[in-house]
Amino acid sequence: MITTDICIIGAGPVGLFAVFEAGLLKMRCHLIDALPQVGGQLSEIYPQKPIYDIPGYPEVKAQELVDNLMQQIAPFKPTFSLGERVEVLEQQEDKSYLVQTNEGTQVRCQVVVIAGGLGCFEPRKPEIVGLEQFEGKGVGYMVKNPELLRDRRVVLAGGGDSALDWTIFLASVAKEVTLIHRSDSFRGAPDSAEKVFELAQEGKINLILNSNIRAIHGNGHLQEVIVEGKDKVQSSLKADHLVALFGLTPKLGPIANWNLAIDKSAIKVNTEDYSTNVERIYAIGDINTYPGKLKLILCGFHEAALMCQSAFKYVYPSQKLSFKYTTVNGAPGF
Amino acid sequence: MITTDICIIGAGPVGLFAVFEAGLLKMRCHLIDALPQVGGQLSEIYPQKPIYDIPGYPEVKAQELVDNLMQQIAPFKPTFSLGERVEVLEQQEDKSYLVQTNEGTQVRCQVVVIAGGLGCFEPRKPEIVGLEQFEGKGVGYMVKNPELLRDRRVVLAGGGDSALDWTIFLASVAKEVTLIHRSDSFRGAPDSAEKVFELAQEGKINLILNSNIRAIHGNGHLQEVIVEGKDKVQSSLKADHLVALFGLTPKLGPIANWNLAIDKSAIKVNTEDYSTNVERIYAIGDINTYPGKLKLILCGFHEAALMCQSAFKYVYPSQKLSFKYTTVNGAPGF
Repeated sequence: MITTDICIIGAGPVGLFAVFEAGLLKMRCHLIDALPQVGGQLSEIYPQKPIYDIPGYPEVKAQELVDNLMQQIAPFKPTFSLGERVEVLEQQEDKSYLVQTNEGTQVRCQVVVIAGGLGCFEPRKPEIVGLEQFEGKGVGYMVKNPELLRDRRVVLAGGGDSALDWTIFLASVAKEVTLIHRSDSFRGAPDSAEKVFELAQEGKINLILNSNIRAIHGNGHLQEVIVEGKDKVQSSLKADHLVALFGLTPKLGPIANWNLAIDKSAIKVNTEDYSTNVERIYAIGDINTYPGKLKLILCGFHEAALMCQSAFKYVYPSQKLSFKYTTVNGAPGF
Repeated sequence: MITTDICIIGAGPVGLFAVFEAGLLKMRCHLIDALPQVGGQLSEIYPQKPIYDIPGYPEVKAQELVDNLMQQIAPFKPTFSLGERVEVLEQQEDKSYLVQTNEGTQVRCQVVVIAGGLGCFEPRKPEIVGLEQFEGKGVGYMVKNPELLRDRRVVLAGGGDSALDWTIFLASVAKEVTLIHRSDSFRGAPDSAEKVFELAQEGKINLILNSNIRAIHGNGHLQEVIVEGKDKVQSSLKADHLVALFGLTPKLGPIANWNLAIDKSAIKVNTEDYSTNVERIYAIGDINTYPGKLKLILCGFHEAALMCQSAFKYVYPSQKLSFKYTTVNGAPGF
């Protein structure tokens, strides 16, 4: 059993920054995230993409922002349960919460903060018969470790940035890269699309446009991908790996069962402190909604700061909160 | 006459960041600040102090944050009237505003954003009989353009960073520099204080400690400053200029006369878009108030973002606003 002041569900940028604001008020945090690493969407979906709208950063790579946030909160010694999904939230007699994950981890805390971004991300899967029986056996929906694809025959499918970026990256890593896209224009960055067209012209990748995957075959592991063009002509590709990059669909997941007021897959909060309708449960970042809400990281930072001022009363019920600037005393850790 | 979309009163960090958020929506900004440089309190009061609570910056010097913000907004080509104070705000028949400063600058805009921090900083003035009749005639409270002091006899008074920094800077510009301070220790950076003591030892400046200015004389223009030590002994200094650097006191100033709803020297706003009770006038950053308000720079950044979404309808009344992430298209300038 882990005991902490605040249990933060979601270790994306907003969940991470909440540790800092909590720390300034001497509140300790434990974070839980379904993804195997901190950073949420930033680390999972676009770690190398530059972000331009973080105040004070003319440009920062998504992963660099996450790294900086980790450095900023280090003095407050947050603890983490990564790769685990919160399943149960149970209020105790003394009003504290017991949070439990799918792996059996238990966290006892005074306050629960949901910083769940767009929810648990689940990959959008193409409709191919028997697809799921090859999952982990050649079929995947994200590239976690490109080294596992070195010198292999890789088929990528999709038309967004992930598909383009991984095609470019893997062109010099895999033995053979094929990109299949249902249309002949890409949704991703024009620069990346151009680069992919160049690689195809140079013969460094195979580019199959206006086509869809119709079937996959293999004997215990993926061996063949069947592609069909708009003209209904089918062709066969030998492949060790198929990575279907059709984006991620956010799902609220178990959060939907916690009696929280929900509006269009987002949790309704009070803008005074970003509290939900359930006492001691707050929601910050992309997962909440209120009049004027913008799904920007910088808004989540603000929400984290106001939330902590309010959460303080549950962690230190007999203390009066006094507001201090870090320019005066710095940010002394624990 | 300057014509722009948004006139931002206050060029502190929050006013500066508003230019970025406005720029993303293709709205142009002109900024007016009573201080002679951008950055507000950060540049004026504690440029070299580290700040720890800017999200993503484990530590950043105040001036460095201002410099980064200036770089971030550069693509949107903001224009500035610095060292000027807004005196009059006049709504026109077409509902646009005409903003006028104490120096006669006129700005025509669709939206006014007050990002005035703690208000107009007004200099703390020493109590010297007849002081105000020499203002602009040798007596001043900030150094706007040090070139005007070249080869002149300058008396500086004060014990903070401004007094130290200007003493050091003017030592090689003015004909003669005298620094008068009421104590024998300085509040400013130890480095700067040491440098000032060195300059005094080398005979490059005159340093008069434990003393106050008792009187000033002149014939239409300042000519003489009378200094009194703790021992009550008075002495006379010939001087062309006296710059009294005793810090700044925030005052709401003319803003108090614009029919805005005010609560304890702060402007009441709606948290949906940080609009005031007067149409087309918004207030963001430390100058506004609402339930849960925290006077943090990061909160002002959030307020700037939501404000711009709302201001858009006045600048482009016939266009529908579509929300875009900078990770997709970057932040293309003008």
